Amino acid sequence: MLENVPSWLLRLALWVVSKSEWLSDKLNRFAINSAVEVCRTRPHPWSTAHDYVSWTSLTDMRWSARHLPAVRLDGLPAPETLREMFRAPGTGQRPCEKSTCLFPAFAQYLTDGFIRTRSQQEGEPDDVRRQNTSNHQIDLCPLYGRTPAQTAILRLRDDTAGRRGRLKSQILHGEEYAPFLLENDAVKAEFAGLDAPLGLSKVQDPAQRAVIFAFGGDRANATAQVAMLNTLFLREHNRVAGEIERLNPAWDDDHVFEVARNIVIVLFIKIVVEEYINHIAPLPVRLRADPRVAWTADWNRPNWITTEFSLLYRWHSLIPDTIVWKDKSYPVGATPLNNRPLLEAGLTRAFIDMSTQRATRLGAFNTAAALVDLEILAIRQGRACDVAPFWRYCEYVGLPVPRSFEDITKDAGVVAFLRQAYGDVSKVDFYVGLFAQETVKNSPLPPLTLRMVAVDAFSQALTNPLLSEHVFKEETFTPFGWTTISQTSTLRDVVARNSATPLGDARISMTRAGWKHAW
Amino acid sequence: MLENVPSWLLRLALWVVSKSEWLSDKLNRFAINSAVEVCRTRPHPWSTAHDYVSWTSLTDMRWSARHLPAVRLDGLPAPETLREMFRAPGTGQRPCEKSTCLFPAFAQYLTDGFIRTRSQQEGEPDDVRRQNTSNHQIDLCPLYGRTPAQTAILRLRDDTAGRRGRLKSQILHGEEYAPFLLENDAVKAEFAGLDAPLGLSKVQDPAQRAVIFAFGGDRANATAQVAMLNTLFLREHNRVAGEIERLNPAWDDDHVFEVARNIVIVLFIKIVVEEYINHIAPLPVRLRADPRVAWTADWNRPNWITTEFSLLYRWHSLIPDTIVWKDKSYPVGATPLNNRPLLEAGLTRAFIDMSTQRATRLGAFNTAAALVDLEILAIRQGRACDVAPFWRYCEYVGLPVPRSFEDITKDAGVVAFLRQAYGDVSKVDFYVGLFAQETVKNSPLPPLTLRMVAVDAFSQALTNPLLSEHVFKEETFTPFGWTTISQTSTLRDVVARNSATPLGDARISMTRAGWKHAW
Repeated sequence: MLENVPSWLLRLALWVVSKSEWLSDKLNRFAINSAVEVCRTRPHPWSTAHDYVSWTSLTDMRWSARHLPAVRLDGLPAPETLREMFRAPGTGQRPCEKSTCLFPAFAQYLTDGFIRTRSQQEGEPDDVRRQNTSNHQIDLCPLYGRTPAQTAILRLRDDTAGRRGRLKSQILHGEEYAPFLLENDAVKAEFAGLDAPLGLSKVQDPAQRAVIFAFGGDRANATAQVAMLNTLFLREHNRVAGEIERLNPAWDDDHVFEVARNIVIVLFIKIVVEEYINHIAPLPVRLRADPRVAWTADWNRPNWITTEFSLLYRWHSLIPDTIVWKDKSYPVGATPLNNRPLLEAGLTRAFIDMSTQRATRLGAFNTAAALVDLEILAIRQGRACDVAPFWRYCEYVGLPVPRSFEDITKDAGVVAFLRQAYGDVSKVDFYVGLFAQETVKNSPLPPLTLRMVAVDAFSQALTNPLLSEHVFKEETFTPFGWTTISQTSTLRDVVARNSATPLGDARISMTRAGWKHAW
Repeated sequence: MLENVPSWLLRLALWVVSKSEWLSDKLNRFAINSAVEVCRTRPHPWSTAHDYVSWTSLTDMRWSARHLPAVRLDGLPAPETLREMFRAPGTGQRPCEKSTCLFPAFAQYLTDGFIRTRSQQEGEPDDVRRQNTSNHQIDLCPLYGRTPAQTAILRLRDDTAGRRGRLKSQILHGEEYAPFLLENDAVKAEFAGLDAPLGLSKVQDPAQRAVIFAFGGDRANATAQVAMLNTLFLREHNRVAGEIERLNPAWDDDHVFEVARNIVIVLFIKIVVEEYINHIAPLPVRLRADPRVAWTADWNRPNWITTEFSLLYRWHSLIPDTIVWKDKSYPVGATPLNNRPLLEAGLTRAFIDMSTQRATRLGAFNTAAALVDLEILAIRQGRACDVAPFWRYCEYVGLPVPRSFEDITKDAGVVAFLRQAYGDVSKVDFYVGLFAQETVKNSPLPPLTLRMVAVDAFSQALTNPLLSEHVFKEETFTPFGWTTISQTSTLRDVVARNSATPLGDARISMTRAGWKHAW
């Protein structure tokens, strides 16, 4: 729509808007509402429970909701035959223009806490992927646990001064980390009620097993990058709790804990919108996490993770096949459940290293060999959940419906692969189409992914109960917390407060140094 | 506001409105929004979990929400000393002008399925009343059970033609009822997963125990009136399932069951708004359950039962000390968990009998002796839940704040009692103040009760997911179900479809025969 407007005029208009708080608020509201209103609002009529509307499909949140009703197509290519559309060639992965490795790290941390598709155990059918174990809120459950009982296990629960409201932690090399989960290679009794880390039984190396953290989330040890983010918010929680305790000496352990958690969850949501979503958005303006936008929005309805959301968030090709931690290279296949790179680098250096390295580009022919099997699992999941084909979602969110394979991508290699595999463009799987598309100018994401991420991100982040009209006020967070929230927009803000060494001018960012918006 | 308008002018205006669908819709929307917008919208910042905002208070629905924050007052009279403000005098109870005994029966059935304060077992502290076992939706859980596992127990689960989608039932004297719960005085194995009827262990009479029904709700056998209503919706479910099966012969047991449940829940909500709320409302117009009102309303936020709602719905003084079932009088103390009056009368006669007898008036000095201990329990519950005093709620919903005991009621006896008990009008308990007030002209309820019932009724009934924008359409219910919904507004409509004998012109109504709106 704006493509025919000269860029100097756009820049002038944006400058004018930026000088008026009222205009900025209006533009922010307009941009967020426009992003959400491309498709139907919740409640979704359907879930993975039934192929028709039922009380179960409307209320039993163990099943995932659906944007579109179930469709089962015949004559689809076997998932395994689609592997080569994902695998990067021997010449290596193409780099991403905009993103550092901090971007996929944050995406993984966010979604592992929020989407939570039910994990498939050895021997279980693909159908278990129709279910989820989500709380359907951005609640930092990797840090605080999924249930009140798990939260109790993770808390220090000590009412003596200097220890109130804290999460359990340990000091290693002078830095704060979560306690280790195992002792003599067995889960410590105090942590028996936590969800076991997924894949733990496959880790053989005793030294690697010994440094797995006692985290709230079963995926929070999945990679050192995710553990890095959870460690950051653990430190921030304990720092905030210390301040809350100091400023409110009459408060007991519970009160300090709860108010610190209120603050840290909102900090996290602010970073989701103001750093992460702004990084994703191809817009030349910065969107703000203004909760007021949701207060009057017709899309402010109870959150519920969709089966589509759990697929479109699998961004394996963003991850380079080798990642450097403190000058040492680790092949991506060597880092599952391996926290040693993090412990050796220390938290601040880890964030700097992730911000210095370039992510690879999201899309076809670009997934590291070690991760390509995950793409097959995703396609199988889409089939097991009867997710409608790709073109139906283009139509649903108002993108052009592809009539030919060339409408999906200009990449001749991808077109040829899709044509050979599917024959008919109307059969292309949702998951395959998502990543066959090329990325949008100024965004690390392809068009359908971008649009659907925006819908769910805004409509589920800004409807958090802590941001609701009668809750989002200073008294919920204390004056200290209210100020902390207003002064935090980025991971860098939080790292700076929790770094063992001064940050100086070190760059901590999801966006590459020197990246500029292309007008 | 309308008191100075001549009644002929009002009647003329209403006649004009009634001739225009557009005007009727606007008036209906205005009336509903006005009723809901007297107080803060959800999410409520507080719950009974903590006296401050916490993630627990915002998400853990086992605790009840709060309209107003916790307040603990010193120097309140002991609950037992307030008994005499409730007890009816030896000269008997005063009758209600507007209501039949069908009104309290329906209120009890509705609230037992929806409010569900946690029951207090022998030896447990009053504090357990801070919790609830509600699903926080009008979901007919007395009929369908509280959990998917209970629903499975209550279903016939038979995929042979003529039995699909049905709930278990039995035929007695040619009429359909739920199966009995016990066999040889023990719960049948198939029903072991149901919540046991509250108070079952106190029932000694083997003949009475033998006819307790296997219902979804632990309070659905509480009185024969409640069992009567649950029996009606059991028959309606099985009738609807039969029609759905006949019209959709390819559908399996699950599909028939789920669509029948969709229909029956919506029928129930229609009756809640169009018969029950209209009976309560002092308005000269009939409100309609128009779901569109909620689609754009800022009060459309996730439901959550409040601790105040669980108190203001205890309408013990509505119930006469003696109720006649098929020409036989039963003292109210003799009917807990006693289904024999219902079985002896049969369903239709039971509805007619309840519609013929006058309820007693809600308010002070009017509770039957057998029920007066329940008032003490309610006061104790209010204290255990730190519910704020009465005057704070008057202020909260925009009613005049009482400055003297005479501002609560004109009844000199009640004023004298309150003055002697409390000394200070600002200390009067919420629960005591609610029922110290006199009923509103044209309504069976006193002012604060009326206003708070309206807020919660509309904002929780019309936000049911089955009424939501993308669900409330013919395809969710089938054409048969859609027509049935549109043609049902009253219990009489449902009784007529499920009566063993033709109803003729028998009156089945919450409103007394001949009652007229006083202009």
